[in-house]
Amino acid sequence: MPTVVRIAVVGAGSAQFSLGLIRDLCLTAELGGSTVVFMDVDPDRLATVATLAARYAAEMGSDLRVERTQEREAALAEADFVVNTALAGGHGREEAERALLDQHGYHRGLHPAEGFFHQYDLMREVARDVERLCPDAWLIQSSNPVFDGCTLMTRETGAKVVGLCHGPFGGIRELVETLGLDPGGVAFEAPGVNHCVWLTQFRYHGQDAYPLLDRWIEEESAAYWSRAEPAYGETQLSPAAIDLYRFYGLLPLGDTSRAIWPEAWWYHLDAATKRRWWPPFGGFDSDAGWARYLAKLDGAVAAIKAVAADPTARVTEAFPPQPSGEQIVPLIDAIANDRRTSLLVNVPNRGALAGIPDDVVVEVPAVVDGGGIRPAVVSPVPQRVMLGAVLPQWLAMERRLAGFLSGDPRYLMQVLLAEGRTRSWEQAEASLDAVMRLRGNEAMARHYGVAGGGSA
Amino acid sequence: MPTVVRIAVVGAGSAQFSLGLIRDLCLTAELGGSTVVFMDVDPDRLATVATLAARYAAEMGSDLRVERTQEREAALAEADFVVNTALAGGHGREEAERALLDQHGYHRGLHPAEGFFHQYDLMREVARDVERLCPDAWLIQSSNPVFDGCTLMTRETGAKVVGLCHGPFGGIRELVETLGLDPGGVAFEAPGVNHCVWLTQFRYHGQDAYPLLDRWIEEESAAYWSRAEPAYGETQLSPAAIDLYRFYGLLPLGDTSRAIWPEAWWYHLDAATKRRWWPPFGGFDSDAGWARYLAKLDGAVAAIKAVAADPTARVTEAFPPQPSGEQIVPLIDAIANDRRTSLLVNVPNRGALAGIPDDVVVEVPAVVDGGGIRPAVVSPVPQRVMLGAVLPQWLAMERRLAGFLSGDPRYLMQVLLAEGRTRSWEQAEASLDAVMRLRGNEAMARHYGVAGGGSA
Repeated sequence: MPTVVRIAVVGAGSAQFSLGLIRDLCLTAELGGSTVVFMDVDPDRLATVATLAARYAAEMGSDLRVERTQEREAALAEADFVVNTALAGGHGREEAERALLDQHGYHRGLHPAEGFFHQYDLMREVARDVERLCPDAWLIQSSNPVFDGCTLMTRETGAKVVGLCHGPFGGIRELVETLGLDPGGVAFEAPGVNHCVWLTQFRYHGQDAYPLLDRWIEEESAAYWSRAEPAYGETQLSPAAIDLYRFYGLLPLGDTSRAIWPEAWWYHLDAATKRRWWPPFGGFDSDAGWARYLAKLDGAVAAIKAVAADPTARVTEAFPPQPSGEQIVPLIDAIANDRRTSLLVNVPNRGALAGIPDDVVVEVPAVVDGGGIRPAVVSPVPQRVMLGAVLPQWLAMERRLAGFLSGDPRYLMQVLLAEGRTRSWEQAEASLDAVMRLRGNEAMARHYGVAGGGSA
Repeated sequence: MPTVVRIAVVGAGSAQFSLGLIRDLCLTAELGGSTVVFMDVDPDRLATVATLAARYAAEMGSDLRVERTQEREAALAEADFVVNTALAGGHGREEAERALLDQHGYHRGLHPAEGFFHQYDLMREVARDVERLCPDAWLIQSSNPVFDGCTLMTRETGAKVVGLCHGPFGGIRELVETLGLDPGGVAFEAPGVNHCVWLTQFRYHGQDAYPLLDRWIEEESAAYWSRAEPAYGETQLSPAAIDLYRFYGLLPLGDTSRAIWPEAWWYHLDAATKRRWWPPFGGFDSDAGWARYLAKLDGAVAAIKAVAADPTARVTEAFPPQPSGEQIVPLIDAIANDRRTSLLVNVPNRGALAGIPDDVVVEVPAVVDGGGIRPAVVSPVPQRVMLGAVLPQWLAMERRLAGFLSGDPRYLMQVLLAEGRTRSWEQAEASLDAVMRLRGNEAMARHYGVAGGGSA
């Protein structure tokens, strides 16, 4: 008999995300009869998502129940799992911030763009609500920044938090496809902190597969990089990723090569530099790459709207029922049905990754079942990678969190002063001041006790 | 009855240092009859020092015995204490390196100037010799870099190592004199790592003395900073130190404000910037300040030579028998005579300073007696100082040491890439290459497996 659970989705307005979740749930018979509560502050998007999800379940013959609410409290009441996918302020505010910082010498802004306030504040609120309203629920953090956010939530609340990120799987898929390997023969391990993970183990049919990568670099990378249309993601086998591989001796996995800006700032000096390292467009987070991403997103939204507007359309045709590859539903299944499995999670370290404090959230494989989530003690990340990449990421995260928790903007100055593209104290100060004055950052400016919020 | 010990001084050619040591020993009756063995590779300087020291002891009516040798092994045989004050290559090579790096965008070179190879190699050799020849001896590390060197020696050998630095005492003296306080009423604590220590406690007659500093800043600092002739040291109450105090909430003590270059790089962009923060000359390590320092050193050497050349001169007149304020002889006295005292030491952390690994050498007060050196568990350094200054110093030290221990120059690239004044990967690479090719760096280039050593 299937286990019936109640799953709350916070920030469910992303139809792509929410339909992906429904699809995976419909494909998991052992969770049949469960309830999904979609919650979003935007009533129109919420209605679209909930209606499409209900249609999807009906078309699949699933007895999943779909509810919707604009109230977080109502969504969380009696939830067994809470999926937090909310992005405070959406992409618009981030884009304005990037454009502003560009004028101050930080091409494409600071990384992570979600930092400093809005997401932290929202994440902490969600975790506090979980602690209060459904303390036994697992809080599955899906939106970024997973590293900062999960560390913040587990330190500041008693909520059971786990961060999930699909980046490593996208990376490994791109690697496997590009090298022409049979996915079934590949095994890997890539520990670290979210968006800074390193391929410490990479085997193909039991043998070390790094020599296959070396041969690809030698023989095929040049042609790969000169293609007019970039491969999926543009990231995993970019010149930047291979350059980091040469420097560190391990391949950075998934988003790592582009996401470790504070430590690998020299790839991000300007648009031309980004194009050199992520040809031909400059990568996912470049001007051109991001525009392509948003256009793709718009296309997906338009497709969803078209289906939503036509009650006779079959949702399962627009979104064929194939597993998404996301780990959210497998994690819920493993815990709810006490079905032991291994997943890649972001949880407090507790000794799993050597050299990182216990209360910092690391990304490691874990054993998951009804007993909870136990991170695996992985083989250490080599010293050169720890000193050059992982520990600086940790320090930068601690500065951002300490700034948020204390409300002391001097921590944010520390973040900026340690950014490799900062040329003077004055530049850092002016940039921070400008960000605080940006429309939409009123609450942030108040939090840090400085002038701001549309005042300039 | 005094305890008779054998003290070996490695790198004893500095007459100022060695005469200071003799002077302190002559003033410590409880060590009467002990033997000092001066060792240096330079026979002329060695002869001068040993002769002057013997004359000093005779004039003082002390029964200290003075020996000399050019052989380290001979000096260390049966030593109870080994004082290492050697600077590999002397100031000349360092100056050439600074001039070279200046051309590559690093005004006055990289910090610490003693890093990367020469001093590490020498320190490790000395520690290995101590381990082999006099394993029960205490190795007192006096020359820089104390932080890197003591961490290296304690990790790589079984020698009992303690680093001593007079910087904090110079700093506290300058502070006390400038604020017009009675030194006897002042108590302080300034933990951290060598050259990055912070005044966590500062009391005057039992009361918090920070308000006295605040009043001085408000009322007297402007006049102090506009003086044509800088105060002693130019460091402790410089605009840079007070700026850091405002930023961190604690006063950096002694050499800290100028020594934490990698983290406070914005004070060191060029000569004009340095003059602004360390008026009027730009501080001890500026072009002008360093020239003054070397001239002062030359003057002292000339004075010493004049006394040495005149057998009828009284050495005790040129160097009046007052305690130097150095901790070396008090430490020897405390251990040899089992006289419990409190000293400021650099030893492996072992939990004394929260947030720093156990095998990293920290600068903390310690209880010292015949039982050895026990670091005191100090109150934590505030998070803002740890994240902004102490932990980055630790990371940079680990990169330098890992580079030295592995011979992998990519660690040195990490050091340069994290330097706030580095503008591009190419700049870092060209700078490292130039340093390796510098005459005198042949062994370093071989160690790192790169081209170098006068090859350009």
